[in-house]
Amino acid sequence: MPNPTAAMLVIGDEILSGRTRDANMHHLAGELTRIGVDLREVRIVGDEAEDIIAAVRALSERYQTVFTSGGIGPTHDDITADCIAAAFHQSIDVRDDARSILAEHYVKAGTVLNEARLRMARIPAGATLIENPVSAAPGFTIGNVHVMAGVPSVFQAMVATVLPTLVGGAPLISRTVTVHRGEGDIAGPFGELAAQYPGLSMGSYPFQRDGKYGANLVVRGQDEALLDEAVAKLVAAFE
Amino acid sequence: MPNPTAAMLVIGDEILSGRTRDANMHHLAGELTRIGVDLREVRIVGDEAEDIIAAVRALSERYQTVFTSGGIGPTHDDITADCIAAAFHQSIDVRDDARSILAEHYVKAGTVLNEARLRMARIPAGATLIENPVSAAPGFTIGNVHVMAGVPSVFQAMVATVLPTLVGGAPLISRTVTVHRGEGDIAGPFGELAAQYPGLSMGSYPFQRDGKYGANLVVRGQDEALLDEAVAKLVAAFE
Repeated sequence: MPNPTAAMLVIGDEILSGRTRDANMHHLAGELTRIGVDLREVRIVGDEAEDIIAAVRALSERYQTVFTSGGIGPTHDDITADCIAAAFHQSIDVRDDARSILAEHYVKAGTVLNEARLRMARIPAGATLIENPVSAAPGFTIGNVHVMAGVPSVFQAMVATVLPTLVGGAPLISRTVTVHRGEGDIAGPFGELAAQYPGLSMGSYPFQRDGKYGANLVVRGQDEALLDEAVAKLVAAFE
Repeated sequence: MPNPTAAMLVIGDEILSGRTRDANMHHLAGELTRIGVDLREVRIVGDEAEDIIAAVRALSERYQTVFTSGGIGPTHDDITADCIAAAFHQSIDVRDDARSILAEHYVKAGTVLNEARLRMARIPAGATLIENPVSAAPGFTIGNVHVMAGVPSVFQAMVATVLPTLVGGAPLISRTVTVHRGEGDIAGPFGELAAQYPGLSMGSYPFQRDGKYGANLVVRGQDEALLDEAVAKLVAAFE
């Protein structure tokens, strides 16, 4: 059976402007691979309502699970929750369960739950909350979309909460063989081997180091015995 | 006049599996911002023909310029050139100009131009070549799409070749004010300031450092005098 599919939507001008380098995508990609969910597509859009709504709809129709990161804080540029509500044709307002979580947190922190912070209790109708053990303000799940914070420590904590609720497939096992030749010399035998093993995925990732060419040949699959067999042939081909 | 728009398509299983962390997107984002081109969307897809073709078409219709990275090497998993040809309804074959470049390079390198390497001379009809000063195998431009290698040193060299051919807008100037308060205390005054300056873009990027909350408030715009005025008000608001 093929693995369940997933997509990610990263929301925020700061990555598109080059100001920030995304860390959440790399984290999520590794975690999903570990539990056997295929991350098939990532999109990054800015803080524009129309773009966010269109991307959420497209990804949510096409893949089994969608993760979003970014845009759920208290400032005016945080418009993700409203856009997700619009994408699912749901109303959105401050919700009591989310407000209680914030109120309790801010009492402990000696901080006022002001109007700006209350924006973080705006949750689309029908959504369930995702716990935020770092800074309280919750994420939420609606339909097949998990809406999470962009701050990496919070994002990672939310991913840890959501992942056990997903049904993964067989984890993808990956083996890497490093060959110190040009890809042009590797391509022929490597392609033939790939054709012999249609159940495995084989990719070549070239590098240049100290002026010499090489490639990491990566073989991926779910059947460990088959993987070992193919890797042994791969090693023999380039001895 | 609004700045020209651009999108990027990153092609490769290795980023979606979490094996590799993308570096090309971050590089391109910074370069485009520098010359006043707005990077509006990034998509990352795997080595699947259908996904690549659909993404190229969607981005090329929507944005003025599209950059792709990855999948133009000699191995069997490099299918980008064929997919781009399909996306533009063009034929593709080994082209004499690309073959000459490779032949000359490999003679110098004392390497054989074998069948696998010749795949890198497959160029869609009507495309123009993008020079590759690092490892010879060219990228190409067809329509509004620039097709470039995934190896970061080669990608960067190709970006350097293509950028001077783009007509940029006024470069986006960006100022950052770091405020050591929670975003919930920042949001009110910051949102009011943003409403006063519709011609500037203002975003808040929260962080947690040594257990304390803060945010980098970023103000972006093309009018430096206006930017200075807004930043002065921002600083005064949080003194």
